[in-house]
Amino acid sequence: MKKTFLLILSAYTLLSASPLIKTAKDAGLKAIPNSKAELLKLIDNKNNPITKEKVALGYKLFMDPRLSQSGVISCNFCHNLGLGGVDGVEAAIGHKWAKNPHNLNSPTVYNAVFASSQFWDGRDKDLEAQAQGPIQAPPEMAATKEHVLAVVNSIPEYKNSFNKIYSDQKISFKRVADVIAVFERTLVTPSRFDKFLNGDDKALKTKEKLGLKTFIDKGCVSCHNSYALGGEMQGFALIAPYKYASKGDFKGDKNGLVKVPTLRNITKTAPYFHNGAIKTLDEAIAEMGRIQLGITLNKNEVSNIKTFLKSLDGDIPKLDVVELPASSATTPLPNN
Amino acid sequence: MKKTFLLILSAYTLLSASPLIKTAKDAGLKAIPNSKAELLKLIDNKNNPITKEKVALGYKLFMDPRLSQSGVISCNFCHNLGLGGVDGVEAAIGHKWAKNPHNLNSPTVYNAVFASSQFWDGRDKDLEAQAQGPIQAPPEMAATKEHVLAVVNSIPEYKNSFNKIYSDQKISFKRVADVIAVFERTLVTPSRFDKFLNGDDKALKTKEKLGLKTFIDKGCVSCHNSYALGGEMQGFALIAPYKYASKGDFKGDKNGLVKVPTLRNITKTAPYFHNGAIKTLDEAIAEMGRIQLGITLNKNEVSNIKTFLKSLDGDIPKLDVVELPASSATTPLPNN
Repeated sequence: MKKTFLLILSAYTLLSASPLIKTAKDAGLKAIPNSKAELLKLIDNKNNPITKEKVALGYKLFMDPRLSQSGVISCNFCHNLGLGGVDGVEAAIGHKWAKNPHNLNSPTVYNAVFASSQFWDGRDKDLEAQAQGPIQAPPEMAATKEHVLAVVNSIPEYKNSFNKIYSDQKISFKRVADVIAVFERTLVTPSRFDKFLNGDDKALKTKEKLGLKTFIDKGCVSCHNSYALGGEMQGFALIAPYKYASKGDFKGDKNGLVKVPTLRNITKTAPYFHNGAIKTLDEAIAEMGRIQLGITLNKNEVSNIKTFLKSLDGDIPKLDVVELPASSATTPLPNN
Repeated sequence: MKKTFLLILSAYTLLSASPLIKTAKDAGLKAIPNSKAELLKLIDNKNNPITKEKVALGYKLFMDPRLSQSGVISCNFCHNLGLGGVDGVEAAIGHKWAKNPHNLNSPTVYNAVFASSQFWDGRDKDLEAQAQGPIQAPPEMAATKEHVLAVVNSIPEYKNSFNKIYSDQKISFKRVADVIAVFERTLVTPSRFDKFLNGDDKALKTKEKLGLKTFIDKGCVSCHNSYALGGEMQGFALIAPYKYASKGDFKGDKNGLVKVPTLRNITKTAPYFHNGAIKTLDEAIAEMGRIQLGITLNKNEVSNIKTFLKSLDGDIPKLDVVELPASSATTPLPNN
């Protein structure tokens, strides 16, 4: 009987769904599932399954500046969970105030799980691989694998947590990154847009629907689609040159492709584009139209699209303020 | 009848209290009150009363790196709420990786409300005055008052929060600091030691009581007393020279006095002393005995005192991970 009820409910949802929901889905937009089990399936990695224990430990490691060589830069420094998962500056700042050598802007960690690859040049296939990068990169956290392992092994709570998670009692740098990646996989921010796409026609206001329609009709959706409204590699500025191309030397991957940023929480992740040269969403939308679609979006169209994008502001996961375990006498001293 | 019951309870508590509780109180140690109302009275500032709204806004401002000139350094960067309220490094690191020019170690923000003055040289009388300092100090957050006000005024949520708190609708730099200070006033961490001092004889283990006795008998309590087990100005290294005196040029206030650090959460706030030159609690205890009390504490005594100090690890306030409001088109661009 329960099954029948669900079937009827699904049919009802389908029938009652506004034509725009169908249009959006046909255009490739996908909703974050309502169901926890479905979401878990979507964000999980079979080679590094999500567990409560890994999420809890990963959160601490993500927030812990002691993993860095200097002792003051955590993952959260550039991917600030309170600031939309970014640092809010043009180019990332890291170890000894180094700026990102390619003038690259820190992408948000929220919903990064939905991207088909990681980094602006898509060089890593998943968060597990990605998490190994910035910890070691000299202009970011500048740590060696040995330093990270020495820190983790010197802090009894961390050691015990790893030993509970991995029954072979082996702690490796890869596993530190794996556990951080599991935490990051859970950083998903469902919004009113998902409610809408999941069948609740009233979840978006008329103006937002108009914006969504413009977003689809103008072709933004051809790159900004699927769960993240982004996350794939695409050609960049093929139609017209990007007006701030001179800021930095980034040219994309070996084929010149660039990762399409997610549009979720885009109101919180200024400045925009790979080199953070664009300060406002209005300018970002107009510039995208010009260099990617070869069109001039008028003020109204920009405003409509922006109104839609605001509906992608999601609910960030509820977390307690982190309490990191104390260092011990064997914790490596910071070098800064 | 309720009153009678409470009187009987108080009498019972007094009678049943171990002699050590009386000794500790007579020596000047004070417990964080159990009663919320009593605690509120203790941590409040009549000129800047604590309200729920100020605490909520102050938490956000405390965590917000946009108040700094660079956009990446928040109060939390040096006073990390997840790391015992400190940064864990020898000397504070700030704007453009400047180290504290006097090689001063960041004091913990937890229980700072109990100190009779703020900063290592005690130059500010309260947290309201203190909070104005690091935001503007060139080697810390390096912001001007104008920058801070421009940021706050550019973010509608902040502006609205201030306007709800202050009915005259005036936002000033002083008020930004005041609101941050109110949040900081609530960062109090009651521990098992307070339970003990409040009459629960079983809250401390036998070894911890032995440590407390040693702590009192040897004279540590003569400077480390009251609510914070510290927080007053005292002479430093008057009996013997401090062995790491050469690290930095700090000489105390105009009378050579130095603020006594709180011992609450001391296991989490390494490295120790004003210049962060001492890495372990054992060495810190021994050195204190030598230069402040003119005694050599043997290994056993150091260990006993350390065991007691661990009982001062307190419960940090339960907070949700902060979600900062988005910047707007008028938010000043970071300069870094």
